[in-house]
Amino acid sequence: MSAFTAVDVIRTKRDGGVLSDPQIDWVVDAYTRGSVADEQMSALAMAILLRGMTPPEIARWTAAMIASGERLDLSAVDRPTADKHSTGGVGDKITLPLTPLVAACGAAVPQLSGRGLGHTGGTLDKLESIPGWRAALRNDEFISQLRDVGAVICAAGAGLAPADRKLYALRDVTGTVEAIPLIASSIMSKKIAEGTGALVLDVKVGSGAFMKSVDDARELARTMVELGTAHGVRTVALLTDMSTPLGLAVGNAVEVTESVEVLAGGGPADVVELTLALAREMLAAAGLPDADPAAALADGRAMDSWRAMIRAQGGDPDAPLPVARETETVRAAADGYVASVDAYAIGVAAWRLGAGRARKEDPVSAAAGIVLHRKPGDRVRAGDPLYELRTDDPSRLTTALATAAEAVTVAAAVATTPTPLVIERIG
Amino acid sequence: MSAFTAVDVIRTKRDGGVLSDPQIDWVVDAYTRGSVADEQMSALAMAILLRGMTPPEIARWTAAMIASGERLDLSAVDRPTADKHSTGGVGDKITLPLTPLVAACGAAVPQLSGRGLGHTGGTLDKLESIPGWRAALRNDEFISQLRDVGAVICAAGAGLAPADRKLYALRDVTGTVEAIPLIASSIMSKKIAEGTGALVLDVKVGSGAFMKSVDDARELARTMVELGTAHGVRTVALLTDMSTPLGLAVGNAVEVTESVEVLAGGGPADVVELTLALAREMLAAAGLPDADPAAALADGRAMDSWRAMIRAQGGDPDAPLPVARETETVRAAADGYVASVDAYAIGVAAWRLGAGRARKEDPVSAAAGIVLHRKPGDRVRAGDPLYELRTDDPSRLTTALATAAEAVTVAAAVATTPTPLVIERIG
Repeated sequence: MSAFTAVDVIRTKRDGGVLSDPQIDWVVDAYTRGSVADEQMSALAMAILLRGMTPPEIARWTAAMIASGERLDLSAVDRPTADKHSTGGVGDKITLPLTPLVAACGAAVPQLSGRGLGHTGGTLDKLESIPGWRAALRNDEFISQLRDVGAVICAAGAGLAPADRKLYALRDVTGTVEAIPLIASSIMSKKIAEGTGALVLDVKVGSGAFMKSVDDARELARTMVELGTAHGVRTVALLTDMSTPLGLAVGNAVEVTESVEVLAGGGPADVVELTLALAREMLAAAGLPDADPAAALADGRAMDSWRAMIRAQGGDPDAPLPVARETETVRAAADGYVASVDAYAIGVAAWRLGAGRARKEDPVSAAAGIVLHRKPGDRVRAGDPLYELRTDDPSRLTTALATAAEAVTVAAAVATTPTPLVIERIG
Repeated sequence: MSAFTAVDVIRTKRDGGVLSDPQIDWVVDAYTRGSVADEQMSALAMAILLRGMTPPEIARWTAAMIASGERLDLSAVDRPTADKHSTGGVGDKITLPLTPLVAACGAAVPQLSGRGLGHTGGTLDKLESIPGWRAALRNDEFISQLRDVGAVICAAGAGLAPADRKLYALRDVTGTVEAIPLIASSIMSKKIAEGTGALVLDVKVGSGAFMKSVDDARELARTMVELGTAHGVRTVALLTDMSTPLGLAVGNAVEVTESVEVLAGGGPADVVELTLALAREMLAAAGLPDADPAAALADGRAMDSWRAMIRAQGGDPDAPLPVARETETVRAAADGYVASVDAYAIGVAAWRLGAGRARKEDPVSAAAGIVLHRKPGDRVRAGDPLYELRTDDPSRLTTALATAAEAVTVAAAVATTPTPLVIERIG
C-alpha cells in the first residue's frame, strides 16, 4: 500500500499548502499509471490553478512529468541543437520559415509540434495542407532527419512525457488550462524530454494569446526560463505582441503560402521581423552568434532547407495547395484608416470557417481561413478590400462574417503609436 | 446542441463568478445523465469549494438536485411529520431513541439514514447489529410503516436526489467534501425530497465533527434553515458540542444497547439531554408543542414504539446483540481527573477496531467499538478502568490502543467549566 492517497494530496493543495517532492512524484506517477483517477487529477488541477505552486513545486512537477517517459538523446546529431516554442497566436506560422532558416545557418532544430485547438492554429495542421507530407515520425527517423537535413517538424511521440499528454487532454475539458504552473511544466517537460540543447520561448501577449497581460506573460516566461536552465537547457524567452494577427494569412494552406513567401525573401514585415529575431536568439543560444539568418533568407539557403525538410517527410514542396470553394471579400464602407484587427476575433472567425477544431478528434479544412488585405494603421478608401474569408462550406460564412466584422474597425483617424512586436527579452 | 458547455460553467465559477439558474439546472441534470463527466464535475466542485456560492446559487443547486429524482408524498400518513438530521459525530446514536420517542408523542418520523464513512458511525450500521433487521424498504413499505408505526429508520431509495448520490460519491474521492454549499445542498435535497413537513438539524461542532468552529457550523446551519424554509419545510437547527463523544458507547451494537437504556428511562445524561432537546424541537415544529417526551420515556411508550419499529423491519428487539471476541481495558496510571476525551481520536480508534469503514464497500463489525468508563471531569484513582476496547480482530488492538491513548488524558486537577451540550439555536 502506498504512503500517499490522492485525497490527502488534493487537500494539501486545496488548503493552500505546499506539496512535498514525494507527494508530487507519487501523484504524477500514479496518474500516469491510472491509479489516481481523472476526477481526482482534475480536482487537483483546479486547486493548483486557484492556489498556485511555488517555484520548487513547479520544478519537481516538471521533473516528474519528464520522468514519466523517455528522454531523447540527440548526441548523434553532431551539431548544436536549438528549438523554439510559441505559446500560440493567431496567424503564428513562424515555426514554418524559422525551422529551415535556423538549420540553414548551422544548428539542428528538433521541432516537436502539436495540433491546434480552439482559435489558435496548429503547426502540424498547417503543414498537412502540403500534399504527401506526414507528421508522424519514429524516433530513429526523427534523429536521422535531424542529422541529415537539420530541420524536423513532426508530432511528439507518445513516449515523451506521457503524464503531460494525459494531463493536457484532461485540463482541456475541465477548465484547468489557464494555470501558469501547469502551462509551464507542460511545455517544458516536452521540450526538455525532446533533448534540445537550447530553447527560445515566444510568449505571446494580447487578445489573441493565452496570456492577456504582460505581467502574466512575464511570470510564465520567467518560470519556463528557470525550468529550462535548471535542466541544462540554455533557455531564453521573448514576450511578443499578439493583439493583432501575425502577417496577413490566418488558416492552414494560406499560412504555408505566406511562409514560403518569407523563405523566398519576401513576405509581411512583421513575420520577417519575428522570424529573424527568434532565429538570432536560437543561433546565439546554440553557440552560433555570428550566423547571419537574414543572408540565409536572401540567398536561398533557407528555401533549400525548407524543400529538403518537406521532402524528407513525404511532402511535395512544388504541389499546388488546396483552394477554398467559396471566398467572400469584405470591403471598406468609407474612407479612413484601419484602427484595429483584433487577433482573437479573427482567430475565432477563421476557426468557424473550418481552419480549426472544437474537439481534438475533429478534422480541419486545409483551405479555410482569412486573408487580410489591410493591417492596423493602413489607409483605406471606400470600396477597398479589407479582408477575404475562405471556406469549403458556405453555411459557415454567416457567423464567420459577423465575428470578423467585430474584429476589423475603420476610423477617420488613427493613433500612430503601434505596439512593438518584441516587447521584452527574458533570459 | 446545448446552449451550455461544462468548461464554460467551470470557468465561470473558477473565475469567481455567479452561476446562472439555467447554468445550474443544466449542469446538475447533465451530470446526472452522464453527459457532464466526473472529471468535469470534480473540477467544478473544487471551484465551488474555493470560490463559494451565493445563497441564491445554493438554493437553485438544491432545487436542481431535488428535481433530479422523485419527491415523496407523505399525505397518506395522516399525522404531522418531523425528521432530524445530524451532521455526524462520535457516539451519536441519538436517531435511535429519538425516532420512536417522537413517534410515541404523536408525530411520524420518516428517517432516511446513511451508513458511516471514516471516523463517524452510520445509523444503519448500528441498527444492522440487531438480528434480522433490514435497512432497505420500498417506498410503499416506507409509507405504510410510517402510517402504522409512526417511526421508520431506513436507507434512502435510489430515486431520491440521484444527482446528490452521484455527486456525494465523487466528492468523497476528490477532496471536495468540505464545501458548505455542497454539504448544505446535499443534506437538504434528500430531506426535502423525502417529504417531511418539519426538520430539526443537529449541527455538530468540535474535534469529532465535520465543522471544527462555531462560525462554520453556524454558517452551515443558517444555509440549511434557509433552504428548508424556502421549500416549505419548517426547519430549525441546534448547534451542539462534539468535542467529546456522546454517551459512553462508540461503535455499533454498543450504541444500540445504550439507546435501549435511554428508551428504558436510563442512559447517560448527555444522550438523554440531547434526545429530549431534539424531540421537543421536532414536536414543536410538527405543531405538537404540548407533547411531553420526558413522560413518554418514563412511562414506556417510547420503548413500545422502538420495539414496534424494529419488528416492522424484521428485527428481533429481544435478541442478544453480537459480543466482541477480544476486549482490553485501559486503566488510570495515577489518581486525578479525566481532563479530556477527544471525540476525533476516539472515533478513529473505534474505526480502527472495525466499527467503521475506510471505503464504502467495506463491511463493518457489529461488535467492535469502545466503551468509556469515565467522561471529562470525572475523578479517577490509579487502577480504575478508563475505557474498554472491543474487537473481533486482535491484530487491530495495537494501533487502536495508541490512538485511544492520545484521546484520554488524566490530570491532577481539572477546569470546571464544561462546554454546554446545546450551544445555539437557529431557526
